[in-house]
Order: sequence, then structure tokens, then C-alpha cells
Amino acid sequence: MVNVKGGAFRKRPPFTSTMILMPNTNTLNALREMFGERLQTTEEILSLHSRDISWHPPSLPEAVCYPESTDEVAEILRLCHTNRTPVVPFGAGTSLEGHIIPYAGGITIDLSRMSAIKAIHPIDRDCVVQAGVRKLQLNKALQPHELFFAAGPGIDASLGGIAASGASGANAVRYGTAKENIRALEVVTAEGKIVKTGSRVKKTSAGYDLTHLMVGSEGTLGIITEVTAILHPLPGYSAVAVVSFPTVQEAMEAAVAMIRQGLPLAMLEFMDEVVMRVINNYAGTDYAEQPTLFLEIHTDEALADIYRHRLSKIITEQHGSDFQWGSSPDEKARLWEVRYNVAHAILAIRPGGNTMSTDVCVPISRLAECILQSKAELAKINHVTPLFGHVGDGNFHISPNILVKNEEEIRLFQRINEELINRILKMEGTCTGEHGIGIGKKKYLEQELGQPAIDMMRAIKKALDPYHILNPGKIFDFY
Amino acid sequence: MVNVKGGAFRKRPPFTSTMILMPNTNTLNALREMFGERLQTTEEILSLHSRDISWHPPSLPEAVCYPESTDEVAEILRLCHTNRTPVVPFGAGTSLEGHIIPYAGGITIDLSRMSAIKAIHPIDRDCVVQAGVRKLQLNKALQPHELFFAAGPGIDASLGGIAASGASGANAVRYGTAKENIRALEVVTAEGKIVKTGSRVKKTSAGYDLTHLMVGSEGTLGIITEVTAILHPLPGYSAVAVVSFPTVQEAMEAAVAMIRQGLPLAMLEFMDEVVMRVINNYAGTDYAEQPTLFLEIHTDEALADIYRHRLSKIITEQHGSDFQWGSSPDEKARLWEVRYNVAHAILAIRPGGNTMSTDVCVPISRLAECILQSKAELAKINHVTPLFGHVGDGNFHISPNILVKNEEEIRLFQRINEELINRILKMEGTCTGEHGIGIGKKKYLEQELGQPAIDMMRAIKKALDPYHILNPGKIFDFY
Repeated sequence: MVNVKGGAFRKRPPFTSTMILMPNTNTLNALREMFGERLQTTEEILSLHSRDISWHPPSLPEAVCYPESTDEVAEILRLCHTNRTPVVPFGAGTSLEGHIIPYAGGITIDLSRMSAIKAIHPIDRDCVVQAGVRKLQLNKALQPHELFFAAGPGIDASLGGIAASGASGANAVRYGTAKENIRALEVVTAEGKIVKTGSRVKKTSAGYDLTHLMVGSEGTLGIITEVTAILHPLPGYSAVAVVSFPTVQEAMEAAVAMIRQGLPLAMLEFMDEVVMRVINNYAGTDYAEQPTLFLEIHTDEALADIYRHRLSKIITEQHGSDFQWGSSPDEKARLWEVRYNVAHAILAIRPGGNTMSTDVCVPISRLAECILQSKAELAKINHVTPLFGHVGDGNFHISPNILVKNEEEIRLFQRINEELINRILKMEGTCTGEHGIGIGKKKYLEQELGQPAIDMMRAIKKALDPYHILNPGKIFDFY
Repeated sequence: MVNVKGGAFRKRPPFTSTMILMPNTNTLNALREMFGERLQTTEEILSLHSRDISWHPPSLPEAVCYPESTDEVAEILRLCHTNRTPVVPFGAGTSLEGHIIPYAGGITIDLSRMSAIKAIHPIDRDCVVQAGVRKLQLNKALQPHELFFAAGPGIDASLGGIAASGASGANAVRYGTAKENIRALEVVTAEGKIVKTGSRVKKTSAGYDLTHLMVGSEGTLGIITEVTAILHPLPGYSAVAVVSFPTVQEAMEAAVAMIRQGLPLAMLEFMDEVVMRVINNYAGTDYAEQPTLFLEIHTDEALADIYRHRLSKIITEQHGSDFQWGSSPDEKARLWEVRYNVAHAILAIRPGGNTMSTDVCVPISRLAECILQSKAELAKINHVTPLFGHVGDGNFHISPNILVKNEEEIRLFQRINEELINRILKMEGTCTGEHGIGIGKKKYLEQELGQPAIDMMRAIKKALDPYHILNPGKIFDFY
């Protein structure tokens, strides 16, 4: 506990601040009056909102508020702005870099009750949803229209969270990331004003692109309350394939050839021999423990054979083997298990362990080299270190099972991440392809983009949130 | 001439300002010393930089500077920032809403000497070019790599200009706008700092998306000096088709069906019967003077017949006739002429006339209704009013030939544009799909997005350009 000008502001590692906060008691009293039962301060609720799914240490908010409308979010923010109370938005709690952990205390705004699908426009291929809507919920509602929302991770994140973290996942290679799949947002500013960042049109040149400024801003520039999302038609035909290669190099050559030949890849995932071994151990399967590509093709029936033939040719040229292809629901489900099992198989390496993931992304031309260098480094340590990723985008993860209480292990993999990032920055890469900066990658952001870019971001932050109440300490430290 | 605190600040309509500018003499003297012959103040050069290709009235800069490097641009800006001198960036001069007209005087930075193609990365499908590189120049250099840069207008704009105005053109339906085709930028800030907005990777979640903030900011937040552009493979096979329909409604139904069935459309252009008549008059052709779709398919040889068959079926269902299909270079060139001729044919309606274009965009589900309403309104006036557009995106232009000296005509079409915009705002449309706000659409921006969004844009502008030297008076008035 650190007292800052009489305030009950709890300072927790790794949070540093020179910010002056006023006591939050006023905020809490006012919110209690406004929200009644929808303001929660029980240990159980606070604890649920103290962590994400990563290794980052938890930290409790002072209270959790459950608004049911944009106007209520605006009311909370007007109050917190006046009282200088920190505010953290919370969707599904699935962030990976501590984005939603309230290291500065304050109020967590849980948006789970704002879960209405407000409109689906099948001809325009878009929909308007409240920020608390989850991806699975949305895709279920879209099924009768033969449409789906493609962006975001495999895990069932909220649309607001996907937008706020600029998330993406395995099918970004075909359908893009949050950036390419969000058309407009409704955002509540630090002062409690409601901003419409754009309209439902496919194209606009009307003023600054506030939509894209908000996508990936991690709750630090405004609270996203509504998302206008771009939808894609469900493929007429889809097939899943798994194929193994003698070397990483050959797997990569095959991947690059598939992209260059314009195959309609909806996914192009790489898994190294460690991942395949871990999966076999977990699921009792007998996949070749070799560098492996897992891929999905979205096309239509009439074109499927043409593409399958082209794929085959590339695989043969790169000495691929065990080429398994599934297009029936059963076959696809069986092959899909390989990819689904990765996360569970890593957690099963040892009980009580947690995953800690790197997230670098490099230009595709440097990917093979980067993965080979990384694997050479990993060979030097005595730890099971699965490496897999979205190679169609140049993005991969080294994802060991660590014990969060074992500081030595954490330091080891922090060092490995740091060395990896130093390596990829020389390859014009980024420290985070899809997880975001949050609390975990702040020091690399400046290294990656340079001081003038950070100064520009800070100037924008200061202009839109002068008291730094919005998710303070994320993306960059206080200033 | 209006003296503002002793400064030689020329105030010209439609520019209004309460800004206090210091005399530019200091700036001019310092620039002369730095740039010598590369600072120009002759009437001829000033005049060349006083207008774009639109009907907006010209206005002279005080001087035109020709930097040859980013560092030189930074030097100019440091000086202008200190002296509070307005700065307008100039690429190819092809803007359509007065973006590059220096209504506040000051220095025009002509980037045409910064025309180096710095790197082409065929595997990563990107390139790095200086801002003054033109689209044709780039696409010529990309041809040996079988790649092309897709975004931007048909006219030969500069890459910096395409980025700054968030431009797009006929092939956005397949390849997207500037937003989807620019990966990163180098930008010089108002203070003369050089910002790298991103890296060459396909995906990143590293901090605020400064790239997209700059795309479409029309020179008001920074001067773009370098563009990292996304490239697409040249199609293995392309074909052009022209087909006419009995009614606008049927042409629109056909267009929507083509999109819904996932045809690989690289263009999907609509031309009304007025456009076809104007083209026939201009080129001596005998196309049916009916609502017409002009489209281009990009695919590969093996799939061409499948798509042609599907297209045929849709056309028959919507009672299309005169279906002409060309896939050989000669046939394509002949059919392409139709589309190329639009601009020239409109100018040829009467000598000395100029085009004045609306640029609304609506959700595709509202497009037929919107075009029909617009045509009903246009039928009430006695003027040739061609209507055409990028229907795959919901974007169309009413583009009459007007005499810029005829104030009555200008007022008439300003009223028509205003009524059109009022109509499309009720359809969740935008006042500008691809031309930008510039000087011409400022009053509609607030109407479209609301005061809180404009306040947010202004706050960003103020944070990044506190003295409002960067292209002052564009997007919004001074404040």
C-alpha cells in the first residue's frame, strides 16, 4: 500500500506511477447509489477480475461494475473522470499480456451484460453488437445467414475485447485480423462522451480513422461499447489437411509456395516436432514427430479438386509425407483435434504449470531463418519448448509450460523472449503479432518503433485521457 | 490581404481563421539559404501548386520547396513550426476536394523529387517507396516480379497522396482501399520529428495504429515521406465484361448476386444510361444506352470457365443483354475504353466545362434505392447528369459538367450534393467514399459522425500540431 496524496491508491508491481489519484471512496459511494446490486465488491468477484489467462500476477480492482447500456458506461466514466479513478474494461478475461489486470486498482467495468446482437445485415455482410457479445454466441446467431465473424483467437473472447486488443487467430491468413474485420465502433471517452467512429459503409474517407485508432488501443483511449463487425460467407466447401516434412526449412518452403500460388488457405499453421510429440503424449495419437503443417482450405465444391491437386504437388516437391486430407465432417473433426489439442497438451506437460508465450512476427521471407535460429537457441536449454504459429502471417509462439512460482523459470523465458525480440527487430519484425503490449511488452514497444512514435502515442493518450484514468499503465507507463 | 498581428497572412475564401501567424519572411529567408534553387517563388511554379483537379478555387502558396530527403522535410517543418508558417504537402496534385490548395498561404512541400523505389520484397509482397513515387512508375517497376500495387484512383497519383487521402478506386471491391494496402509509413511531425508508424510485418498488435491514423489524415497530422505498400500478384487470367440491363434495379440485383456468389470480381462498375449516351457521343460507339455494368474478373485460367458460366446465369436471371466478354489483350483493351472514356466524355459535354463530383457511399443493401431516388431528383433539373460508381462498394458519383464561373450552376449542384448527403445519412452512409473531406465536405463531417467524434479528431489534431501549421483549414476549420 502506498499513500498518494491521501488517496487509497494501491500500487502493485510491476506498476510504477507518479500519478496523483484522489480517494476512490466518492466514486464507490456514487456508483453504489447508481448501480445497487450491479456494483460488486465481494472477494470472489474481485478475484475473478484480478487476472487474465496469462502468467502475469493478479491484482484486485476496488469494485466491479456491471453496466447494461452505453449510457451507463458513460455515467461511470464521467464520475471516474471527475474523481480521477482508474477504470479497466473487462470482456471475457482472455487477454494474454495482463491487459485487464487492474494494477492501479479502481473500477473494473465488466461488459458481460451488454451482450445484445443488435442487428445482422446479411446483404451488407455486417452486424452491430454490444461489446460483451462473445464470438461463439455471435457465430451461432449468424449460422442461419450462412455468415460468420472470422477475427480473433480460438478462445471464446468478447467482441469488445477482440477489438480493444486488435486480436487475431489462425484464420487471419485468409480473413485478416480485428483491424480488417471491424467497420466501426461506439466508444465512450474518458470524459464520458459517446463517440461513433464510423458508419456501416464499406468505404469512407470521412476524417481521421478513429475506428482503427481504437482497435488495439487496449482500453487506454476509450471503452468500446458497440462493434460493427464485418462478416464473411461460410465456405461452400472446406477441407483440412495435415502433412509432415523432414525439416523446418522444407515445411516453410511449402508454406511459402502455397501462399504464392494463391491457394484459398483459411489457415496455415506450423507445429514443430516438439509440439507433435507433446500432442501424441497427450492424446495417444501417432502423428510423425516432425515439422508439420496444419491447413484448412475454404473454396467451393467445383474448385476443390483443382486446389487439392496443386497442394499435392507442392507437398511432393518439398518431400512432405503422411499427407492427410479430410473434407467430411468426421474427417475434419479428427484432423482438427491436432490443432485444438496444442494448448491442452502443453498444459498437460506437467501439473500446475502454466503457458508463457512469445508472440513475435516477422516478414515471411525471414520466417524460416528466424524459427531455425530460435530452435537452435532453445536446444541449449533443458526445457520442453513447443514452437508453433500462424506461418501464413509470419507469426509464431514459443510456448513452454512454466511454473509461475518458479522465478528462475520465468526469468529464463523472459531472457529467451528478450533475445528473440532483439533478433526479430533486426529482421524488421514486431514483438507482438496478435497478443498486444499490455503490461508485458512495454519495454519492447519503444525498441521496436522508436521514441518519436511512442511520443506520438503518448500525445494522443494525453489528449484523449488527460487524467490517465483509462486502463492506466498499459501499453506504456504513466508519465 | 488581411494583416494578422503584423504578419503577411493572406486570407482567402472559403478559409476562416482566428489563428495568429507570425511573418513568413523569416521562414522564406531561412529556406532560401537551405534549399537555394530548390525553393521556388515564380508565378508559374506558385500557380502550378495553387489548384488540384477539382472545381475548388485556386490559392497561391508563398513558396514551393523541393526536398530530396526525409531529413530535409524534417528541417522545413522544424523551421515552420518555430515560425508558425503553414505547410501544405503536394504529391501529384490530383486531389478532388481542394486538399492541396494552400488557402492559408505558407510553404508548399512538393515531394516529386522524393521518387525512389527503395525496396521491393517479392516473397513478402511489399515494397518501400518514397512518398513522391507515382502509381504507374511503381507498377512498371513491379511488373518483372508479377506483382502490382492496387489501391488508389485511376489517375496517376503519388503514393504519398494516395496514403494521405485514403484513396481508392475501381478495384477496391477486390483489393481494398489505401487503408488495406498500406502497411507502414514514415511521417514527419509538425515539430519535425521522424516517426516510423509500423514495420513490414503482416500483423502487429504493437501499440496504437499510427499507420491508419495517418492514412486519410490529408496532411493535417504529419507529412508522409515514405510508404510501405502491400502488393498483390498479377492475376494469372483476367477478363473484362460489359453488360446492359433494362432497369437500374435489375443491374443492382445482378451486382449483389455476383458479390454474394463470391465471383472473383476485381471491378464492378455501374454506369447509368446518361453515361452510356455521353460515351457514345464522345467515342462514336453504339453501346446500349441503358443501365450498364462494367466488370473485371481476376482468377486463373483453370477456373475461368466456371466463373464465366456463373456470371452468365446471373445476367440472364436479371434480363441483361449485350453481354460482351473479353479475355484477349485486344478485346480487353476495347472494352476497357468504355470505362476510361467516362471522365473525358463528361469533359467533352461542353467546352470549358469542369467536373464536379459527389462521392457518397451507402451500405450495398440501400444502393439501388439510393441511386433510384437520386435519379428521380436529377430528372427534375435541366442538366446532363451522368451517374456512375463502384457499386461493389456502395460508392457512386453524380458527375455533371459545370462551368466554374457559373455560380448558379455551382450552387445548384452544391444543393443537389447537400440533399443527396442528407438522404444517404439516413441510410447510414458516408458523405465521402474515396475523395476525402478536404475543403469541400467539412460541414458534412460533423453531420455524419456527430460532435463527439469531431471533438476527438480535433483533440488529436491539437495534440500533434499545436500551432495548426499542417495543411490548415482542411478536414475542419481552425479553432
